[in-house]
Amino acid sequence: MNSPSLYQQLGINLDLALEAHELLRGATGQEIPGVREDKEELPNATVTTVTIFSPEGARMMNKPLGKYITIEAPNLRIIDPEIQSEISNLLARKLQELIPTSEQLNILLVGLGNWNATPDALGPKVIGQSVVTRHLYNYAPEALTPGLRSVCALAPGVLGITGIETAEIIRGVVEKVRPNIMVVVDALAAKSIDRIGSTIQIADTGISPGSGVGNQRVGINQETMGIPVIAIGCPTVVHAAIIMEEVILKLFQELNMYQGLRPPIINDVISNVLSPFGGSLTVTPKEIDSMVENLAKTIARGINQALHPSVTPSNLSYYLQ
Amino acid sequence: MNSPSLYQQLGINLDLALEAHELLRGATGQEIPGVREDKEELPNATVTTVTIFSPEGARMMNKPLGKYITIEAPNLRIIDPEIQSEISNLLARKLQELIPTSEQLNILLVGLGNWNATPDALGPKVIGQSVVTRHLYNYAPEALTPGLRSVCALAPGVLGITGIETAEIIRGVVEKVRPNIMVVVDALAAKSIDRIGSTIQIADTGISPGSGVGNQRVGINQETMGIPVIAIGCPTVVHAAIIMEEVILKLFQELNMYQGLRPPIINDVISNVLSPFGGSLTVTPKEIDSMVENLAKTIARGINQALHPSVTPSNLSYYLQ
Amino acid sequence: MNSPSLYQQLGINLDLALEAHELLRGATGQEIPGVREDKEELPNATVTTVTIFSPEGARMMNKPLGKYITIEAPNLRIIDPEIQSEISNLLARKLQELIPTSEQLNILLVGLGNWNATPDALGPKVIGQSVVTRHLYNYAPEALTPGLRSVCALAPGVLGITGIETAEIIRGVVEKVRPNIMVVVDALAAKSIDRIGSTIQIADTGISPGSGVGNQRVGINQETMGIPVIAIGCPTVVHAAIIMEEVILKLFQELNMYQGLRPPIINDVISNVLSPFGGSLTVTPKEIDSMVENLAKTIARGINQALHPSVTPSNLSYYLQ
Amino acid sequence: MNSPSLYQQLGINLDLALEAHELLRGATGQEIPGVREDKEELPNATVTTVTIFSPEGARMMNKPLGKYITIEAPNLRIIDPEIQSEISNLLARKLQELIPTSEQLNILLVGLGNWNATPDALGPKVIGQSVVTRHLYNYAPEALTPGLRSVCALAPGVLGITGIETAEIIRGVVEKVRPNIMVVVDALAAKSIDRIGSTIQIADTGISPGSGVGNQRVGINQETMGIPVIAIGCPTVVHAAIIMEEVILKLFQELNMYQGLRPPIINDVISNVLSPFGGSLTVTPKEIDSMVENLAKTIARGINQALHPSVTPSNLSYYLQ
Repeated sequence: MNSPSLYQQLGINLDLALEAHELLRGATGQEIPGVREDKEELPNATVTTVTIFSPEGARMMNKPLGKYITIEAPNLRIIDPEIQSEISNLLARKLQELIPTSEQLNILLVGLGNWNATPDALGPKVIGQSVVTRHLYNYAPEALTPGLRSVCALAPGVLGITGIETAEIIRGVVEKVRPNIMVVVDALAAKSIDRIGSTIQIADTGISPGSGVGNQRVGINQETMGIPVIAIGCPTVVHAAIIMEEVILKLFQELNMYQGLRPPIINDVISNVLSPFGGSLTVTPKEIDSMVENLAKTIARGINQALHPSVTPSNLSYYLQ
Repeated sequence: MNSPSLYQQLGINLDLALEAHELLRGATGQEIPGVREDKEELPNATVTTVTIFSPEGARMMNKPLGKYITIEAPNLRIIDPEIQSEISNLLARKLQELIPTSEQLNILLVGLGNWNATPDALGPKVIGQSVVTRHLYNYAPEALTPGLRSVCALAPGVLGITGIETAEIIRGVVEKVRPNIMVVVDALAAKSIDRIGSTIQIADTGISPGSGVGNQRVGINQETMGIPVIAIGCPTVVHAAIIMEEVILKLFQELNMYQGLRPPIINDVISNVLSPFGGSLTVTPKEIDSMVENLAKTIARGINQALHPSVTPSNLSYYLQ
Repeated sequence: MNSPSLYQQLGINLDLALEAHELLRGATGQEIPGVREDKEELPNATVTTVTIFSPEGARMMNKPLGKYITIEAPNLRIIDPEIQSEISNLLARKLQELIPTSEQLNILLVGLGNWNATPDALGPKVIGQSVVTRHLYNYAPEALTPGLRSVCALAPGVLGITGIETAEIIRGVVEKVRPNIMVVVDALAAKSIDRIGSTIQIADTGISPGSGVGNQRVGINQETMGIPVIAIGCPTVVHAAIIMEEVILKLFQELNMYQGLRPPIINDVISNVLSPFGGSLTVTPKEIDSMVENLAKTIARGINQALHPSVTPSNLSYYLQ
Repeated sequence: MNSPSLYQQLGINLDLALEAHELLRGATGQEIPGVREDKEELPNATVTTVTIFSPEGARMMNKPLGKYITIEAPNLRIIDPEIQSEISNLLARKLQELIPTSEQLNILLVGLGNWNATPDALGPKVIGQSVVTRHLYNYAPEALTPGLRSVCALAPGVLGITGIETAEIIRGVVEKVRPNIMVVVDALAAKSIDRIGSTIQIADTGISPGSGVGNQRVGINQETMGIPVIAIGCPTVVHAAIIMEEVILKLFQELNMYQGLRPPIINDVISNVLSPFGGSLTVTPKEIDSMVENLAKTIARGINQALHPSVTPSNLSYYLQ
């Protein structure tokens, strides 16, 4: 079982804890020490909670200790009002479990990613649809209705646009704004195409270096920010190398070749085909624009409901600018 | 040698005549009747002209009779002022060979594609950087300097946004505006990753149904529009199925398997892996936003110089809004 | 009483029939032959219907024969979910009165204006939020639910961007698409600042030359398009000249000067102060971006409900891309 | 001479030192103690340097001690390549006089304003056209050519979008990035319509509270940021109140009324007419989108040339993303 080496060779991290766990457990479904997985089946979604509770689990998963809640909702890709509203509500409930209940909370929402590249624009798009209120507390308290918490929001851009590490910008703002908690939204890369546009991961661990479509170089988490960081991510792409490996392994299986072994030449051939752009090639559906639009709407709605108790599905759109 | 069947099975057309010719000729480099290929080597570009001059050639190439000029410039992907300016000038010269020299020409520029999806936004972005003058002829002739021709421009959007076939919109506008010639810009899909961001095809045949990233359903050509249509296209993606096939065939070669044969199971495995999104998955580099930005700049500059004799590299930026 | 001469001198038309009627009737409130005005008071809106029913009325009003329904809702400027939803519903009801009830209707929605200039971007923004279905009838009838009518949509841009008269583009598309009816959305100029952001006019007359913020040169109406055209417009600006005149006349009143007379020098002084930009200066609030965003949302919601009987306030957002 | 009271009453500051000086000096052209004005006439521009060198001058001008260089170039409003290039070069020269010559400088560029409101989008648009290099120093030094300095860039948004004071965001980033100097670009309000789109002010004082179209509440200057701040601003609007006062005073002059006196009722009438939107109404030309586009291009070009010695007019466009 040496498949992770392709990931290592190309410097690819699995963003979804669910997929990392699946890959580690392999065909035999063996238990991974220090990792627990719980499943909850709902009519239109499966919620899987992967908990990494020991350093050994963290090392094997290559992910920090913490809780990774994944909502899988294949029907999210179909535009159906009721299902999408259901997923927003589910996201809101799961988020609320991770956020202190105090009304006095100051929350910083951060939308990571590059607004100029559709698959990476999820974070900034969610920011554009969030109910921002922090300034009202200072300048127009009369515009506040009960049940609105203090929320501020930032889409810091990416290194290529600003010349500044995103984590540096956020850290600078955190030191001024002093929020109690941060919620970070980012586009992710999945291992499986099935999960594009249909999956939302909520992690109480923040964001590790090297994850996300835009590949953070520095983590955005309690350690770097000094406050709890909840990360919400959705796969919008699959790394091209990963999908190539998948097709090759499936083919070998069909041809009854190699019997689960994995000739090392595979990595070389893949690297070679992808060489003009290195690890940066991603696979994405043509409908990526409407998919990201819909994900942003579903996630923003869930976040707004979770953060502001007075926001309901029917009045939400009017709190937005 | 039955590889085209994957394309047929997934309804994929090769957009670049150069690649279709390469594929047809295969490893043996056999001549294709009715098709001629000429190469011109320049310091920073190779210009290949594929001419399809007989119906048999057209049938085999699955492309209309006509001239397909392809500029391959790998250095276009590096941001180097001198090389890019060189390619703009080269594009302008090649375009001028296809456009009548009359000053009295009325030209309609059309930018196909979806402005909301980065890899498909090339056409609209070129429109945003074109020197549009037709209204000055009617309303402000004093603002016209000699050497500006009458150019109007349209970015008609895509079916999913308007609910209208793009060709219908363009045809409607053509019947009102009565241009003498149309230049259409579109994002293409390549067979080879190498060609993403480094290749410009100029065809005097217009656009055939099923080509481009956004997949026109109806052709945009002399037949449907009643005027000559010059198509300028650049690959910004590769179909995921194509790249998968490439990696599999390379692997077989490395493993000395199948000796050039091609087990039909390949197509099934590929289709199966891609099935959640059908043929619509594409591979694209993460830097797609800056790549499309640069291509748009290079192409718009070439078009502006070709259409307006008085526009030069150094004064161009000031004619733009 | 010679105040209209300022409008004539600067080529300014009053876009709102309500204001044109008010101005004509003057302080004395005299009746205008061929014009009738009806008022309906609702809790959060006043609906005024001005009907021009004789050629003399049309000549005096400088507007075509027809019905002009104006919704005045000062609270629209406050972001209050319930009031805005109320106004969307009201707009939907008033629109439905002007649209045939047949399910088989083909409707073309047109968003006039310049997406690059915030106060003029209302039309394109409404298009971006409309439920477009025409292509589903042709390509994916299974995605259609009962109660969706065939709607297509176009944001044709402005003369300075395309080089083509907007009416030419629309007429070209109409001849291809053959809709039964057209709904056109545009940003208007008001006479009174009060009406910015708080007023919606629905007219069964289409759009006359010279109206709207972007000033159509050619009408978009039954005469030019060959089908009924319903125009929906909202003031987002006031002409600078108009507001200057207002302040001067108020000042004279306060100073008890001129007793209702109007020294002709006023027009010259105003023209002189505005001369660097001629009639093109407009007055607009700094919050214009969020105001236009909110108007677009309210109007798009009303239109979607009116055109698609199955769209309701609670499911609307999910039909949108 | 009590005209400033309108400004005070409405909380309006004159952004251009040139205009504040003009207003103070009044019709008599009296000297203001502690303020010096120097003029330089160039073929297509007048450069006026207002230096405030004593606390008394600062108090009277209601502006901090420092140097305010104003480029007035009426022809900037005409799209003429040569004139615009001339102004970019002039701006670059004037900027270089204020920036240390060291190659080792780290510079933070900040684009203030709201990207959603055209007249206030100047700052963010300049950021979008700046040559950003700081990340190359850290991650890709081989991509650096000699003559590029370390520049990073930020468009922090406005309070209504983020819920955070802009100065807080910038200060947070400054503390992380530790630049040696900051260059801030902002849209301004002028007193005179003539100056819209034709004027660039460069001040070594940074930005004071209450200035700019978006009205900073907190200063962005050496005092708040701890490093020198150079502010570049262009008027894109005139406050509606100011233009109303101008038209009234001109009218009185024409009518030979009040002989330079100023009946206090004027302020009340103006406030009353503007009351639906308070001081937030601004006057702006309809062509604001192309005007802001052109100003952004001219300013970005000047800044890029000033900051990066190796950037020249002819190669600039290729350093941009």
